[in-house]
Amino acid sequence: MSVSARELHRRLSEDLTEPHSGARRIHVTGSRPDVKVPMREIRQHDTPALFGARPNPPITVYETAGPYTDPEARIDPAKGLAPLRQAWIEERADTAPLDGLSSEFARKRREQTRQEVCFPDPPAPRQAHAGNRVTQMHYARRGIVTPEMEYVAIRENARMAEMAETWREAGYLKRHPGQSFGANLPETVTPEFVRDEVAAGRAIIPANINHREVEPMAIGRNFRVKVNANIGNSALSSSIIDEVEKMVWSIRFGADTVMDLSTGKDIHETREWIIRNSPVPIGTVPIYQALEKVGGVPEDLTWELYRDTLIEQAEQGVDYFTIHAGVRLAYVPLTAERVTGIVSRGGSIMAKWCLAHHTESFLYERFDEICEIMAAYDVSFSLGDGLRPGSIADANDRAQFAELETLGELTKKAWEQDCQVMIEGPGHVPMQLIKENMDKELAECHEAPFYTLGPLTTDIAPGYDHITSAIGAAQIGWYGTAMLCYVTPKEHLGLPDKHDVREGLMAYRIAAHAADLAKGHPAAQVRDNALSRARFEFRWDDQFNLGLDPDRAREYHDATLPKDAHKVAHFCSMCGPKFCSMKITQDVRDYAAKHGLDPKTALTEGMEEKAREFREGGSKVYPVA
Amino acid sequence: MSVSARELHRRLSEDLTEPHSGARRIHVTGSRPDVKVPMREIRQHDTPALFGARPNPPITVYETAGPYTDPEARIDPAKGLAPLRQAWIEERADTAPLDGLSSEFARKRREQTRQEVCFPDPPAPRQAHAGNRVTQMHYARRGIVTPEMEYVAIRENARMAEMAETWREAGYLKRHPGQSFGANLPETVTPEFVRDEVAAGRAIIPANINHREVEPMAIGRNFRVKVNANIGNSALSSSIIDEVEKMVWSIRFGADTVMDLSTGKDIHETREWIIRNSPVPIGTVPIYQALEKVGGVPEDLTWELYRDTLIEQAEQGVDYFTIHAGVRLAYVPLTAERVTGIVSRGGSIMAKWCLAHHTESFLYERFDEICEIMAAYDVSFSLGDGLRPGSIADANDRAQFAELETLGELTKKAWEQDCQVMIEGPGHVPMQLIKENMDKELAECHEAPFYTLGPLTTDIAPGYDHITSAIGAAQIGWYGTAMLCYVTPKEHLGLPDKHDVREGLMAYRIAAHAADLAKGHPAAQVRDNALSRARFEFRWDDQFNLGLDPDRAREYHDATLPKDAHKVAHFCSMCGPKFCSMKITQDVRDYAAKHGLDPKTALTEGMEEKAREFREGGSKVYPVA
Repeated sequence: MSVSARELHRRLSEDLTEPHSGARRIHVTGSRPDVKVPMREIRQHDTPALFGARPNPPITVYETAGPYTDPEARIDPAKGLAPLRQAWIEERADTAPLDGLSSEFARKRREQTRQEVCFPDPPAPRQAHAGNRVTQMHYARRGIVTPEMEYVAIRENARMAEMAETWREAGYLKRHPGQSFGANLPETVTPEFVRDEVAAGRAIIPANINHREVEPMAIGRNFRVKVNANIGNSALSSSIIDEVEKMVWSIRFGADTVMDLSTGKDIHETREWIIRNSPVPIGTVPIYQALEKVGGVPEDLTWELYRDTLIEQAEQGVDYFTIHAGVRLAYVPLTAERVTGIVSRGGSIMAKWCLAHHTESFLYERFDEICEIMAAYDVSFSLGDGLRPGSIADANDRAQFAELETLGELTKKAWEQDCQVMIEGPGHVPMQLIKENMDKELAECHEAPFYTLGPLTTDIAPGYDHITSAIGAAQIGWYGTAMLCYVTPKEHLGLPDKHDVREGLMAYRIAAHAADLAKGHPAAQVRDNALSRARFEFRWDDQFNLGLDPDRAREYHDATLPKDAHKVAHFCSMCGPKFCSMKITQDVRDYAAKHGLDPKTALTEGMEEKAREFREGGSKVYPVA
Repeated sequence: MSVSARELHRRLSEDLTEPHSGARRIHVTGSRPDVKVPMREIRQHDTPALFGARPNPPITVYETAGPYTDPEARIDPAKGLAPLRQAWIEERADTAPLDGLSSEFARKRREQTRQEVCFPDPPAPRQAHAGNRVTQMHYARRGIVTPEMEYVAIRENARMAEMAETWREAGYLKRHPGQSFGANLPETVTPEFVRDEVAAGRAIIPANINHREVEPMAIGRNFRVKVNANIGNSALSSSIIDEVEKMVWSIRFGADTVMDLSTGKDIHETREWIIRNSPVPIGTVPIYQALEKVGGVPEDLTWELYRDTLIEQAEQGVDYFTIHAGVRLAYVPLTAERVTGIVSRGGSIMAKWCLAHHTESFLYERFDEICEIMAAYDVSFSLGDGLRPGSIADANDRAQFAELETLGELTKKAWEQDCQVMIEGPGHVPMQLIKENMDKELAECHEAPFYTLGPLTTDIAPGYDHITSAIGAAQIGWYGTAMLCYVTPKEHLGLPDKHDVREGLMAYRIAAHAADLAKGHPAAQVRDNALSRARFEFRWDDQFNLGLDPDRAREYHDATLPKDAHKVAHFCSMCGPKFCSMKITQDVRDYAAKHGLDPKTALTEGMEEKAREFREGGSKVYPVA
């Protein structure tokens, strides 16, 4: 084991591999024994006697953390995760392992790189047989339900059908009608539904044939809203171990996909370590590495070099590529009067290339050839918004929308080759202009999934942009965005460390869940209902464990009421024992129940006597633990 | 000086009284020399040569921090702030100082309380001459523009008219059309406009005649969206010094008003210390103290005791009272089937009282008498939402809306006596149900200002409820809420300390500003534009100083690029020097300017030669500091 792997192993063995508090990883098996879909099951305590002593059923929630939280799993980061899709890919018999690497750069790297940063014994990459398309969209359009699609269906349901009766009895199925803005959210997601969504281009399953370790998931507005976390080093900081550790932090705190945006040293090797150890799809922006290869001079980029980079990364198993093919020469001057010009790195690189050569972007010109590569490995497109606004002032301008229209044109081209596509979106947008972005994306890009960065709803809060953007993300998620790219508190200021990753993810899991609730996702409110009942009944541990971050909740609670006895206290530090409204409510409720009152109607006549009873019996001093 | 005052003085002398980074407190004088309205002026550096060397004008922003950030001010917390409204109140000649205290409880307290917790030499309280109404609404309806109204007008404008030409030249006046949902936001707020809004009941100026220290401010949807911070001890924790310190933290981080929700010991004395040292309006919930007086047994509350509490607090100078007069007997059973019942402390106290006595609420029955007291001191009503939902499941139910309808009825009654009124709102509400709250409030409560707690858009994130609720607060602020009551990360878990106060306020200043932008407030985008220009030009210090929390931004930046030289670096740690999109954009911009390109049109013919020039001259290596 190399030095870095040993250190990595140590870091991942500390708190990152603990099961989530009060929960365990369970599996639901599909139509074949190797479709084993992981979920998180959160146990609950019984309701205390004061509130009517009864058992409370466990809650199942969607789980992104992979085997890291499974005490049964033995994880060796130098070996990578188990290749759970191996058999599915082989069975399709439309791909074969290669004898060597197709990328010239990758071959050179393998020979020349110092051993200690290399992932040991990486698997031989596979490629489609010549002319074959091996994308999930390809299968879907031909009516084939892949194991990946079935996996996604089971995963999205999170045992809703199985648990429905139990949860109904516990009162967890109460829900408000949603406002879905045209999203179609079935009560139960079937494998056929998934197939249909993928075939229509309304959803993607990013799953490169060389990322056999991935637990399949779907991105589409008719599924749960997803969250992406960006990690990656820069020329100035971070190491391979830091990045792998950040990836594991990301999925522990709910990242559905992770983008490795490294621009520093050992980009190729860093990516290999991340992919081999990642149960979630990994995205990249290949132009970053291509630019590194030409010493950081955009004008020196060539199609050949870029093409080699795509193949290099596709054979490592990257699941989606951000490709800024919509930054056309003609759009560059549209940005000249902006307050913050072009803020996308990829966009600015391509803009500079176009201007320097006075030529149309090679990404745009060579788009069909790019599609061929994507189809041969099933790398999904994330069509980049290179001209996204970097300030409130620049929101929804002509440059941004011109590019979006081009992305729509490219979406159709990609679909012609069965390539899966999602569309990247802004950026900085004030609230009143957010909906126009969503509406325009659906119209111009033919309902391909939208994947937005925030948007940030104001520019004035550096240090808190996870919040400025969670506000926008919740809204655009509600309107139909399929995946929200997180923003951390360090946005505009520095590279996020693992603590920033946690803050960013929590803000975005909140935004995504708020969006699911608002759309009316059939399963969303179950967790809110369960948590609120636990809160009402002073089941403190259940309240913590049902929350997005049990450790943080517990830590905050214990800051004022640290004693163990207080975990079963029927009050908290905000109000103290005498002011507890929950307790008073229970008195009201007991009173109503005892006297057979219909809570739908008002208290009316004949109640004086009952009031007296209540006065005598119902207002004892409050219990103190 | 008492022990507590000495300690207090020490605490306030540390970082709390530093001027905001890069800023100074300035004053704009009105029609009379004693209308001196404070604002914060943020200086800017010159644009560096690379981006076209030019000076940048200062930005003026609304300031809540009071004299604490003024190096000229000498503040002695044991003396309190200067009574800036003294002359205005006396001139009106409709009030007189009292010989003693009108409240029996307050008199007893003054005799019996141990000296060391008492504020030394509190001022003699004033009261309206018998039968007089001394509210800002009373004057407004009679066509009188008070100094308070003029102060508010100047404050809301924040020098917009005076600076407009300078800011226009600097490009700061660019703005998007707002979507105001019926709000009326004039380009310039005149004193007459303020008078009109107050007379119509669409805005309030909470300013008790006994809070002479207050810097007047307005709450109304045709003004900037405001933010309230809750502080206060409980039976389990916190001291007087902690609470005064939290008040000063609150206003430093942007609280427009502060509510003292103490339920622990020395409530009366804590409040005196806070009010005497507070430049922002102070709100309370008098029923909390009333309950303390009867040993925490709601059934033992009486109108007489409550009345004495109102007078006690009115004579100290509380600017607004939360009064849960809409929790009527008949509504209590409507909450029996809720998931979280009644979560408002005040609401649950009154519900219990009503049930125990089987009598209509004395707050409702005695409402006219309450109005008389409010009118005699100009205490504004904050009509409490005692039946607000405490969980997503309970949002927008019949209990909540029944109470809201009653609050509308009470608003009219209060207005008959010239009392100022705002209406409290929820709570926990999923996004798709938020707008109904605002629309219903405007309709039922005749456009009285709405004052909402969040709303929290999901229940599942204890530890992060400043974020779950900032999402909802931004939206309801956009729709028309006049003031947002903050939520801190400790919500549901414990009492906020001063660090939580900061986190909560930042989340809410963001929400309020995002709402101002979305409504189309004429001055809102100036700060975004200035900050974004500073960001684009790598004026790091300006970017920090124009932000909501310069210290936090600086700290985050320095975590990865601590060297002073990096403060003028033309790159940052996210991308490093070679990937800087801002730098590339500037190349594009220079190129367009040099060649006289019209940025509104596309690059077209005849540009090959220019492209060559650019290639040769425009793509030097990037400057590294």
